[in-house]
Amino acid sequence: MSGRELVVLGTASQAPTRYRNHNGYLLRWDGFGVLFDPGEGTQRQMVLAGVPSSAIDRICITHFHGDHCLGLPGVLARMSLDQLDRTVPVFFPAEDREVFDHLTNASIGRRTVTVEARPSDEGPLVTEPPLRLRARRLDHGVTTLGYRLEEPAGRTMLRERLDAAGVHGPEVGRLQRDGSITTPAGTVRLEDVSVPRPGQVVAFVMDTRLCDAAVELAGNADLLVCEATFLSGDQDLARDYGHMTAAQAAWLAREAGARRLVLTHFSQRYADNARHAAEAAEIFPDVVAVNDLDVVPVPARAG
Amino acid sequence: MSGRELVVLGTASQAPTRYRNHNGYLLRWDGFGVLFDPGEGTQRQMVLAGVPSSAIDRICITHFHGDHCLGLPGVLARMSLDQLDRTVPVFFPAEDREVFDHLTNASIGRRTVTVEARPSDEGPLVTEPPLRLRARRLDHGVTTLGYRLEEPAGRTMLRERLDAAGVHGPEVGRLQRDGSITTPAGTVRLEDVSVPRPGQVVAFVMDTRLCDAAVELAGNADLLVCEATFLSGDQDLARDYGHMTAAQAAWLAREAGARRLVLTHFSQRYADNARHAAEAAEIFPDVVAVNDLDVVPVPARAG
Repeated sequence: MSGRELVVLGTASQAPTRYRNHNGYLLRWDGFGVLFDPGEGTQRQMVLAGVPSSAIDRICITHFHGDHCLGLPGVLARMSLDQLDRTVPVFFPAEDREVFDHLTNASIGRRTVTVEARPSDEGPLVTEPPLRLRARRLDHGVTTLGYRLEEPAGRTMLRERLDAAGVHGPEVGRLQRDGSITTPAGTVRLEDVSVPRPGQVVAFVMDTRLCDAAVELAGNADLLVCEATFLSGDQDLARDYGHMTAAQAAWLAREAGARRLVLTHFSQRYADNARHAAEAAEIFPDVVAVNDLDVVPVPARAG
Repeated sequence: MSGRELVVLGTASQAPTRYRNHNGYLLRWDGFGVLFDPGEGTQRQMVLAGVPSSAIDRICITHFHGDHCLGLPGVLARMSLDQLDRTVPVFFPAEDREVFDHLTNASIGRRTVTVEARPSDEGPLVTEPPLRLRARRLDHGVTTLGYRLEEPAGRTMLRERLDAAGVHGPEVGRLQRDGSITTPAGTVRLEDVSVPRPGQVVAFVMDTRLCDAAVELAGNADLLVCEATFLSGDQDLARDYGHMTAAQAAWLAREAGARRLVLTHFSQRYADNARHAAEAAEIFPDVVAVNDLDVVPVPARAG
């Protein structure tokens, strides 16, 4: 499924390091882009990743700790410098509306984009294609939302049956749109020439302790992006600070039936994330502990 | 004069590039540190430069375009992560007090440092050692302050005369403090055993068109840090956007009798700053066109 990938812009928890910028994740979904948690420096990380500001159609903020949001004004400034004329919905926890308003008025400058504030709580937030959006509250001490994106279910057209029914070219599009079409040989129904195709799912879980809401968000996700701030040896710290270990993230992925797990948001106490990957891989096979500027494909549909 | 230097944290105007972060300049003055214009990403640039957050004692913001201020909340967060317990005066144009308040409340988190807002206009802002501070309004379209820092004048003690007068050890300090001291041989006055030593001066001029206030700020400065967004070939753009060319910055340094000129704040339209340096050097000899993480010494006192 080309064109469906996670561009990792930053992977540091709390403090940036020489090698890790603060958070920032762009989900590219064919031509549509969702930016998660733009930490400070995200606009420059986009330059380094070769991602234009025009790639952003929607922004989701999990919570207002600085490492998850302080890059927002810079991203909006960059979109305006690039003279984009579009409305950008920004989802964030409704309880911190005041912080959002401070954040989006923290500098002077012409803004060509229109920021559509979407103060949010649990439940469905977007129901239209290309990506439905839902949120659940997580367990991090301050109000934090995890997100789930769902591609609407579709149908896979079967070439042989279309040929047998004599449906060709633009008629295929009409059949998909209208559900049936009349040909010289009679009426052809969509379900006669196609099979159901479930939509793909991406879940974004941070920052949080392991909790039921996280399992629900990650249910059958094709791609689960999950914080793994600590290693199991530091799981007491993880609990105290409202975070997860790599093993807990892997347990979450397994429990939820996810297909691929992306680990990120690493504490600067660790020199690298090799042990995070190893610890998780013992529990869940398809795991990637990412570094800044990595690109992780959303796995192709099964079967 | 070891320990008096400018640590260059970022040099980009408007948009960061692969090689240039947004603005950020730390003047280290013996044990005292003044941070100018912390653009987005300054806290990470400090990590790259090996500068701890404890090096910052005062912050000066020229204006509230994002490339000059959006790193402030991250710097304050980093100082708090490092558990610094101090009051940090932050100087900024008084007319934009509201923007300052947004900027300093743009995220959630515990703050251990106390931010002392210092809304400012033209005139003296700090009169105490180690560095007096004055501001002038510049010509940039939005309210912008240039800054001048002055070391109070002192006196250089003359070893031979001290010896001849029989003043030694702790008595030298008492003489400097009290202006005179009585010895078994009689009264010794400070002016008998020392000569005047003018204080050093650093000027910080950005963003602005060339203007009289800039010349005044830079008067006899030992170090002049000046924006040079454009080359002379683009001087119409410089004028239209409220900026200077490298040649204008050099003219300013010469006219003001400055000793060393630091050029920065380069437009991303130029691949590098070699031509900025060359253009300025034709007018003013001691010029440095800086790159991120450069360190420029304040020149030692003449004579």
